[in-house]
Amino acid sequence: MLLLIPLLRVASPEAKAEEGMWLYNRPPRTLLKERYGFEPSPAWLEHLQKSSVNVGGASGEFVSADGLLLSNQHVASRTLQRMSTPEHNYVRDGFYARTLAEEKPCPGLELKVLMEIEDVTERVNAAVQPGMTDEAAFQARRAVMATLEQDSPERPGLRSQVVTLYQGAEYHLYRFKRYTDVRLVFAPEEQIAFFGGDADNFEYPRFDLDITFLRAYENGRPARVEHFLKWSAAGAAENELVFVSGHPARTERLRTLAELKHLRDVEYPRSLGKLKRTEVLLAAYAKRSGENERRARADLRGIQNGRKRRDGTLAGLLDPAVMARKEAEEQRLRSAAAADPALSAARDAWDRIARAQEEIARHSQIFDLLESGSGFNTTLFTHARRLVRAAAERQKPDSERLEEFRTSSLPSIELSLASAQPSYNDLETLKLADSLTYLVEQLGLQDPVCMKVLAGKSPLARATECVSGTKLGSAAVRSQLFAGGEAALTQADPMLELARSVDAEARAARTPVEVQREAIRQAHAQIGKVRYALYGPTQYPDASGTLRLSLGTVEGYRENDVKVPCLTPFAGLYERAASQEFRPPFDLPRNWIKNRTKLRLSTPLNFVSTADTIGGNSGSPVVNRQGELVGVLFDGNIHSLVMDVQYSDDLARSVSVHSSGILEALRKVYQADSLVKELLRRSQ
Amino acid sequence: MLLLIPLLRVASPEAKAEEGMWLYNRPPRTLLKERYGFEPSPAWLEHLQKSSVNVGGASGEFVSADGLLLSNQHVASRTLQRMSTPEHNYVRDGFYARTLAEEKPCPGLELKVLMEIEDVTERVNAAVQPGMTDEAAFQARRAVMATLEQDSPERPGLRSQVVTLYQGAEYHLYRFKRYTDVRLVFAPEEQIAFFGGDADNFEYPRFDLDITFLRAYENGRPARVEHFLKWSAAGAAENELVFVSGHPARTERLRTLAELKHLRDVEYPRSLGKLKRTEVLLAAYAKRSGENERRARADLRGIQNGRKRRDGTLAGLLDPAVMARKEAEEQRLRSAAAADPALSAARDAWDRIARAQEEIARHSQIFDLLESGSGFNTTLFTHARRLVRAAAERQKPDSERLEEFRTSSLPSIELSLASAQPSYNDLETLKLADSLTYLVEQLGLQDPVCMKVLAGKSPLARATECVSGTKLGSAAVRSQLFAGGEAALTQADPMLELARSVDAEARAARTPVEVQREAIRQAHAQIGKVRYALYGPTQYPDASGTLRLSLGTVEGYRENDVKVPCLTPFAGLYERAASQEFRPPFDLPRNWIKNRTKLRLSTPLNFVSTADTIGGNSGSPVVNRQGELVGVLFDGNIHSLVMDVQYSDDLARSVSVHSSGILEALRKVYQADSLVKELLRRSQ
Repeated sequence: MLLLIPLLRVASPEAKAEEGMWLYNRPPRTLLKERYGFEPSPAWLEHLQKSSVNVGGASGEFVSADGLLLSNQHVASRTLQRMSTPEHNYVRDGFYARTLAEEKPCPGLELKVLMEIEDVTERVNAAVQPGMTDEAAFQARRAVMATLEQDSPERPGLRSQVVTLYQGAEYHLYRFKRYTDVRLVFAPEEQIAFFGGDADNFEYPRFDLDITFLRAYENGRPARVEHFLKWSAAGAAENELVFVSGHPARTERLRTLAELKHLRDVEYPRSLGKLKRTEVLLAAYAKRSGENERRARADLRGIQNGRKRRDGTLAGLLDPAVMARKEAEEQRLRSAAAADPALSAARDAWDRIARAQEEIARHSQIFDLLESGSGFNTTLFTHARRLVRAAAERQKPDSERLEEFRTSSLPSIELSLASAQPSYNDLETLKLADSLTYLVEQLGLQDPVCMKVLAGKSPLARATECVSGTKLGSAAVRSQLFAGGEAALTQADPMLELARSVDAEARAARTPVEVQREAIRQAHAQIGKVRYALYGPTQYPDASGTLRLSLGTVEGYRENDVKVPCLTPFAGLYERAASQEFRPPFDLPRNWIKNRTKLRLSTPLNFVSTADTIGGNSGSPVVNRQGELVGVLFDGNIHSLVMDVQYSDDLARSVSVHSSGILEALRKVYQADSLVKELLRRSQ
Repeated sequence: MLLLIPLLRVASPEAKAEEGMWLYNRPPRTLLKERYGFEPSPAWLEHLQKSSVNVGGASGEFVSADGLLLSNQHVASRTLQRMSTPEHNYVRDGFYARTLAEEKPCPGLELKVLMEIEDVTERVNAAVQPGMTDEAAFQARRAVMATLEQDSPERPGLRSQVVTLYQGAEYHLYRFKRYTDVRLVFAPEEQIAFFGGDADNFEYPRFDLDITFLRAYENGRPARVEHFLKWSAAGAAENELVFVSGHPARTERLRTLAELKHLRDVEYPRSLGKLKRTEVLLAAYAKRSGENERRARADLRGIQNGRKRRDGTLAGLLDPAVMARKEAEEQRLRSAAAADPALSAARDAWDRIARAQEEIARHSQIFDLLESGSGFNTTLFTHARRLVRAAAERQKPDSERLEEFRTSSLPSIELSLASAQPSYNDLETLKLADSLTYLVEQLGLQDPVCMKVLAGKSPLARATECVSGTKLGSAAVRSQLFAGGEAALTQADPMLELARSVDAEARAARTPVEVQREAIRQAHAQIGKVRYALYGPTQYPDASGTLRLSLGTVEGYRENDVKVPCLTPFAGLYERAASQEFRPPFDLPRNWIKNRTKLRLSTPLNFVSTADTIGGNSGSPVVNRQGELVGVLFDGNIHSLVMDVQYSDDLARSVSVHSSGILEALRKVYQADSLVKELLRRSQ
């Protein structure tokens, strides 16, 4: 059930035409109508919403009635790596199931489709009484959110989650349909999915076939889905209006200056330091052999992507022009609050946020090391932490649990523990030893936590002991321990002991951060009222991983006086490879060299649009006015990286694979005829 | 003139047999005689000393009467890069001059041969009066050292330098012969010089032909040298006693616990953070094209080497066993000082060092950023800083100048400025923008230095402006500015202005650090007396870039129950490449594939010995009892990395190219007949 609010009073003076990651229950109707003459019907919106899929946090879309799903190869690459062995490397070599029987289970992958949205702001806020301390408010809000999420008998098969929007000005209840039996249908070789590698990542022109087809199953059979996108064989055309429907992970556009400065001065430098440190560690490990390369591949790719993205955002935060715009906007809001007695409660909101931010900053190092787990960088520790906490939290009522252990979230926790995934002791030891070294660097060897963690050993010796001694690499053992609760956890396991030994300190670091975040949410709720008074409901909330609708135009741009075209043809792929002498990461898979002459080289492979997207939008469908799929989004260009904090359409573009290019490759390079047939099936 | 002190009373109980980076004027005579039955004559020692060459800070050796010099390809790789263009890539493709006429000038490379050593400890200490403040002592010592270094008319053509030994317990005056016309004779392809790349760096077994031949010229003709090493065609044999003569750069073995903790807790984490950050920056840049790769190659290789080395040393410092041995030794020295009234002046030496270290720590961040230049990572800034300072310092008397601008050092400064080297604006902008970002992260945007440096712009905008606006990329411009002094520097150049704008702050950070280092030197002089009283003169000073003699045995080791042999044959090279499917960095140059069948595959290519060496020893000759060259050192294994702080011979080994392997490769792979003939010429 979509709740549509059919108005758009005035655009904020700062808002650009195609800016916005809109909520499905607040689509930009007026903007679409006035600027593009387009009036999407409720059915149009519902169809796109329910065709859109959350794929393990990123995006995807149904493209057939039989649960066939399109996303990016890079969205699935961690799953592909889990499925791989030294004998079958699906990341490097790709995969194609010519029949249903050949489709391969994807362990641990979860799909979620947003079916219903309900605004519960008033019910959440009613639980938080004026005059409560921040801590009491935090607990009250946690309790009411847990109650709201309890399974509703009228909604069989749906899972509920309360999401926080506008930094805490609104709360909506989302109900999802969930699929946990997911199978791999098709993946191209990573060489072509990620042609140009880290070098061309976030760059344009681009030539990547970054796609994967998966299929949702129910009861052992392909899931029948009511909503799926019709494939446009023609695909995106220059100057066309397009829509992107996906899960942008996180933007910081509504944050106050104090919060942005904290990001700029503390969070980004710290996270970049860790990313670069781990990138060097994994790159050096990967270079030692082909098998090492295979083992570290997905981690390394994710880290390089995160590093390039954050470097770009930090450069934006260090641009005085960006901060000046932010400051002017904040001044405008503050003046409005000062001028209007009805907004007096908001007057000190910015200062309250600044104070809360300072308090968070005091705990952020230890929070990052112990609670976020930067000091214990191995999946084995993540498993151990989950087991230790699940056992403790499940003994509490839902309303008092840590958020991720509420009844509504336990199935995801259980799935992640029960999913088989290869674990390599050499790599896990290396990562743990390095992160223990980081822990020591940050806190000092004499810190009581470090002394306890290292137990008189060097980081390497301690990591070796914990990794080689643990049984948590086995999914069966983890499932058994999860089922057994506290009693099962008494058995000796060095990784479980490590997790237990820092649990109290980690929780102690979490509490003040959560309380201060509550204070920030309350202050933002006040600022939200100022913004509403000024601009009306023309504001979209910051991205937070929830489903959003963006719109944009397919158009190129001029950079350093060079015109960058909006579409790139297959011919450009071969030209770029040749100009780089086919040296990695510009080498081509054998299939692509062999079948070159068959291809119509003018077919578009990639294209750009001005749609407002960000990390997490990867795999999003790009659709035209008819709601047909014209592409699948996989990246933004380098100029888009600042969009974490501020939208821009001068040079910033999102980058997608073209729907006609996908068909051309599937037909001529992969002879994937059954797949093409399913995509183009008229009556499903 | 060698001063030989023929005694070795008692070995320190901690000293291992083959430990020691000995001074040529304090060779380990007794040890050699008692353990190996070997008594080197003064002539033997003088010959090895004067055949040894300082090659831009690293090591090398004369191998013919015509000034032919052998070192490592990696020692010369920065020079090779300077000589390269997009058309001629000497790093990648190597080089061979079949005739003298074809030998190519190496811009900016300086060779130094240590001709005389004189102990001037008493004269230096006489200048420092008891009761002087640390600052007065620092100035007095600086003045007397400048006086001692003044050119001596009795030593025409030699340059003098006072070197600090035993952390300040002794001062020796070194006189060098200097060569600045150096030409390239032979370099192999980097693929074989650095086979296995960063992956195999510091690993063993190893298969690298890491050699370069250069030639010293005088007056436009090959330099006639009296001392050069005879080539051993047989080369190093298992269990043979060998000697290594080179320039180990820096060890920290005599440092106190407080100093080591500072290294462990502050210096190493900081320098590793910077190295990893820059490694990621350059690796990402290099991957974008073959030309980028060429431009960044030498920087990247140096950074990766430094990162791997420091990671290893830090792991050693974090090993409680290493620190426990250090602590026990320090306790022994402190007890000796407490027990002997004659050593009473030493009793608080450790505490004085700890206090001085704390004071240095307070300034170390700003020192690192502004004075060491971490905040301005571009060669163009280095040039600018040198020009600005040279102009200022040359107006002062020698005794008051910064050390590196004393008359004795000016020729090296002038050479570095006047040497042509390619400068690429894209790469220099990238490096400067990243280091300005680092500066801001460290000090904060509101810091007055940052405000001045950025001038209201983003780091990228400011870097672009400075790099694109400067004329300092031209050697001719630099020479002209150097010659012109202060008057010439008044012209507008953004890089000069940048250097000038932070000069006062950089100098202000340097002074307290230098003064506290003086306090540390004085305290170490006292600790040196305690050590002397306990062990006699059996102690070698910490490495500090001065010429040293090490000894060792050619022998393998057992690691994880696997025997690692001391010699690796050519056959192993081909096996390793095949086992890695010839993927980079395990690919082989065409020459090596084509000529494989000609090679005697049992010929040794590399070998290990227990000789006590460290970074800076690269290129050192390895000689046998007859003083013949049996190899050229190029690396240590991973276990040797802890030797910065503590010697070990359990698993630690230095790694060299075998002299017979060099001949085999020169003959069969490179058909370098004239070069082989010169190496084997009997009467030169």
